[in-house]
Amino acid sequence: MILSALVTSVGINTALCFLFFILYTILRNRPSNAALYLPRLVAEGNLREGNVFGLRKCLSSFSWVKRAWEATEAELLENSGLDAVVFMRIFVFELRVFQIATIIGIFILLPFNYMGNQLDIDFTDLANKSLETFSISNVDDGSNRLWIHFTAVYIFTAVVCYLLYSEYDDIAALRISSFYSSKPQPKQFTVLVRSIPVTSEKTFSDSVGSFFSECYPSTYLSHLVIHRTDKLKGLINKADKVYKGLVHLKSEVSAQKIFNGDGCFGIFGQNSEHVDQYDKDVEDMERNMSAEQFSLTGEAVPAAFVSFKSRFSAAIVSHLQQGVNPTDWQTEPAPDPQDVYWPFFSASFITRWMCSVIVIFACLIITILFLVPVFIAQGLTNLTQLETMLPFLSGILRMKIVTQVVTGYLPSLILEIFLVLVPPVMIVLSSMQGHVALSQIEKSACIKMLWFTIWNIFFANVLSGSALYRLGIILEPKKFTELLAVSVPGQLLNVYIPKYETGGKFWPVVHDATIVFLILMHVIAIGVFAVKKVHFASTLTVPLPILTLLFHSYCQKRFLPSFKGYPAECLINKDRLDLNDPSMSSFYETLATSYEDPAMEAVRDYQAGETSATTPFLRDVSEV
Amino acid sequence: MILSALVTSVGINTALCFLFFILYTILRNRPSNAALYLPRLVAEGNLREGNVFGLRKCLSSFSWVKRAWEATEAELLENSGLDAVVFMRIFVFELRVFQIATIIGIFILLPFNYMGNQLDIDFTDLANKSLETFSISNVDDGSNRLWIHFTAVYIFTAVVCYLLYSEYDDIAALRISSFYSSKPQPKQFTVLVRSIPVTSEKTFSDSVGSFFSECYPSTYLSHLVIHRTDKLKGLINKADKVYKGLVHLKSEVSAQKIFNGDGCFGIFGQNSEHVDQYDKDVEDMERNMSAEQFSLTGEAVPAAFVSFKSRFSAAIVSHLQQGVNPTDWQTEPAPDPQDVYWPFFSASFITRWMCSVIVIFACLIITILFLVPVFIAQGLTNLTQLETMLPFLSGILRMKIVTQVVTGYLPSLILEIFLVLVPPVMIVLSSMQGHVALSQIEKSACIKMLWFTIWNIFFANVLSGSALYRLGIILEPKKFTELLAVSVPGQLLNVYIPKYETGGKFWPVVHDATIVFLILMHVIAIGVFAVKKVHFASTLTVPLPILTLLFHSYCQKRFLPSFKGYPAECLINKDRLDLNDPSMSSFYETLATSYEDPAMEAVRDYQAGETSATTPFLRDVSEV
Repeated sequence: MILSALVTSVGINTALCFLFFILYTILRNRPSNAALYLPRLVAEGNLREGNVFGLRKCLSSFSWVKRAWEATEAELLENSGLDAVVFMRIFVFELRVFQIATIIGIFILLPFNYMGNQLDIDFTDLANKSLETFSISNVDDGSNRLWIHFTAVYIFTAVVCYLLYSEYDDIAALRISSFYSSKPQPKQFTVLVRSIPVTSEKTFSDSVGSFFSECYPSTYLSHLVIHRTDKLKGLINKADKVYKGLVHLKSEVSAQKIFNGDGCFGIFGQNSEHVDQYDKDVEDMERNMSAEQFSLTGEAVPAAFVSFKSRFSAAIVSHLQQGVNPTDWQTEPAPDPQDVYWPFFSASFITRWMCSVIVIFACLIITILFLVPVFIAQGLTNLTQLETMLPFLSGILRMKIVTQVVTGYLPSLILEIFLVLVPPVMIVLSSMQGHVALSQIEKSACIKMLWFTIWNIFFANVLSGSALYRLGIILEPKKFTELLAVSVPGQLLNVYIPKYETGGKFWPVVHDATIVFLILMHVIAIGVFAVKKVHFASTLTVPLPILTLLFHSYCQKRFLPSFKGYPAECLINKDRLDLNDPSMSSFYETLATSYEDPAMEAVRDYQAGETSATTPFLRDVSEV
Repeated sequence: MILSALVTSVGINTALCFLFFILYTILRNRPSNAALYLPRLVAEGNLREGNVFGLRKCLSSFSWVKRAWEATEAELLENSGLDAVVFMRIFVFELRVFQIATIIGIFILLPFNYMGNQLDIDFTDLANKSLETFSISNVDDGSNRLWIHFTAVYIFTAVVCYLLYSEYDDIAALRISSFYSSKPQPKQFTVLVRSIPVTSEKTFSDSVGSFFSECYPSTYLSHLVIHRTDKLKGLINKADKVYKGLVHLKSEVSAQKIFNGDGCFGIFGQNSEHVDQYDKDVEDMERNMSAEQFSLTGEAVPAAFVSFKSRFSAAIVSHLQQGVNPTDWQTEPAPDPQDVYWPFFSASFITRWMCSVIVIFACLIITILFLVPVFIAQGLTNLTQLETMLPFLSGILRMKIVTQVVTGYLPSLILEIFLVLVPPVMIVLSSMQGHVALSQIEKSACIKMLWFTIWNIFFANVLSGSALYRLGIILEPKKFTELLAVSVPGQLLNVYIPKYETGGKFWPVVHDATIVFLILMHVIAIGVFAVKKVHFASTLTVPLPILTLLFHSYCQKRFLPSFKGYPAECLINKDRLDLNDPSMSSFYETLATSYEDPAMEAVRDYQAGETSATTPFLRDVSEV
């Protein structure tokens, strides 16, 4: 890649960035778009008409950027939970790392690289100069200047490790303090039990009830066996569709009535035929629903949410092996009720284990298949190769602007497009592994993406290209930000309602990723110093990855346990505080039903003859 | 190696075996040797005079072998605990594996190998034939006979995996049943707490007391802070030595008095001078002891044994993180009181962590240094090489018997001698890792030996030699038996009093080792088939290690948790049974002192003016 191609690439990206920024500011200014740009405020009813005027005023300029950056950690914590704070901290941490890498790279390493004479390049034509002139490739073999790079690697590693440690420390403390200040949450008192043993005499519900009331007589509260609801969910979706069709049609008919008086009988007659058809559908559906409800008792799966009177009891049950056979009565902390991923509860231990194994193989295959677009992108940076392969393009490829776009912008664009496709695939794969929570699925997908990125971006792309030249890229472990889809705070505050709260459990993933990238950097540095014939520097770099791994192992012992659960001390203290809280008894009442499957909830509501604002249902439909 | 050399080696070993067997039987027959050969019966007082005659009769023949093999599992379990049963099962398991390997190897593979023509060897001189004639090297390249080897690998793996699974299943069940039938044991009710946080206001004892009585008010029983007793132990050892010297001297003096009347004054005078000297020593020691006792209150280390009223509470405390900082209040299940390894309690979390890291590096260095004897042994099997290196030996080396001993027996003897030196070194290294129990140290040393063996016996020795020829050796994963120092039952029953009881926790180590050796066998098989140009067989063997690893991972999920602790169900049930047991209150009383450091116990006894039969002490000495 030549310098002018890099400048082209930077130019295109900056221009696009500005365009989107201005578009966003203009569109956001229109009050009619508030539901689109400030959905959270609208959903929470905080966007009153009076507010819109003040809002319009403050949005009329670019001040939203400033406001977005000004949100304090306390504000974020209150509004969006600990995960939002941790995401922001991850973002800031990576900016800092990037900052340090930029300072070291541009102000210290780059001038020294440029002063080298290893690559014999014409100095008069700067625009067509290869980027290699600014890279370590240009430093003379065996030059003492390489000791500056050596020092840079050590300093960079030390600073990043320091930042990692202080972040881990802070986030661990934040976790405990936000636990202490949290209101009682169903997940704190509930345990998910899977692989309930099958017996011929007892139903799953009876088994769970007798097992836990016998083992934990003083703290066991209630349980809720999970039912297979795939069919029911299908019916509900169908009912929903019919309902929408019916509402639309009826409103159309009445509108025609008003507009035409009695006229245009033909169309009206046609529409009322439709209405009749829909009414028939509704009848069918009601019959199916009743049959399905009837059969629901037989559809229980060997999994249940078991609630306890104290957080400590729930923690004990989720940490200790319950039954004699470790694959029976498998317990784990329950996720948030809205975080539950329902489809996979019916799977047995063996099925889940086999699914995990299959998913691992699938990931391997995807990672290997991804080499295809990588090699295409790699081919584009090498134009002569492309000309040989596709000779009819040679005329176009010799145009200067085409060369710059094709070698500078296209390869990264192709890679980005393919990279965008990978996370959804990883999420689908993770959801097949038998995770019970959306947060677990996303975390698992993140880890898969991490390994995918390491393999593809580094081994396949970098090593197949010129490893030396790309050293600068590796020095900036910023790629990971994209994986976690971090947004600026204004967005966390106004746009998203957090679907779930993991209590900062994403941080260890970021920590691990950073360590992996540091080690990769060390390995490259060792190789580069050896190639550059400063073997002593190469040898002296060897302890660095070892020290980094020791640091990592220490951090894992020092902090990781705090992210797996809460310590007994905190649980017991928090439970004691609740003893004096009069609202606990009403909380216990809601606890019993908080883990009801949404599909089952709908059935219950229907059976009770209740109507719900959010789940339009058959009874409502027939009343429209 | 040639056939006659192998026969020489087998001959020497068999002859030595017979010699030791006969010597043992003869020496064991003498009643005066009972204390040496049946120490356990003597120690337990089960060896009465009347018994000796019957004993002599039954020992006069070789019947002890039969008796040793006839001991049932129930007898073993009752007499020597679960560990003895598991050791026997390991022994029997490995015999079975060996048996299968022998049958497949000698009756199926060997004839086919011998029928091959790959190695062009003179068939008339069988004695000087290289062993390679019987190995897979002799099968023709690309021959269909290699599919027999392919089938053998699959069958052998399947049978070993089946044996592994059924053993794991049996031992896991044995663990639970022996837990149910066990008497209340101090270790079941006790937790070891380390890294007690240092505060300026409170002593460690107060900290532990207030922390656990606050968190577990209903089940906390007592605690015992551990003291630094290195100095005290030194003094006790010295006192012991002085005591023995004094006793010996005084008895000598009185014997002389009886023998000589008053005579031989010179010697007597000399002896009484010695007695005076000893008396002075004793006085010194008493002064030191008092000073040491006085300073003991300041020598508490941040570790304590905390006892609870129920097994379940102890399990909860040992499984859950207690304090906010995971490196404070570190809990783990307490070992048996007699299993405790006292020296390492004073180490802090950081010290222990750093010690572990250093030990890992030390192990690596030892493993690498062991290459030296391996290469010496390797050199001996190649005589021509040896002749070139040491030309003056060529006369001796050309003698036939010397050749056979040097190439057949010496290499394995040298390796065995060096191998014997390794386990003690590994035990010393393991004891530096901060383990608190002898059983943990031995288990850790076992695992180190496993990796050491894999590296040295396989990679260094086999790969540096002819991998093909040694395939037969690898097919027999019997080496591991030696590591665990398994003895026949007669020995377990009559000779050893078990020092500790791990509840069969050694089995997972054997399981892992077997899996590792199976995988190594698969890797070799894949390589051999490729070399022998049956690439299809080579490819078809690839799934085998993957399947084996999947089997291993399944076993780990299915059984391993049962070996880490006992399930809640069992603990709760066992605790409930105890509620009706009137002897529990006296058990609780003994529990409070059962984890006292033997050194401290001696001091306590001394302070109380008690005399103990097993620990002769200063007061006794001055009264002799």
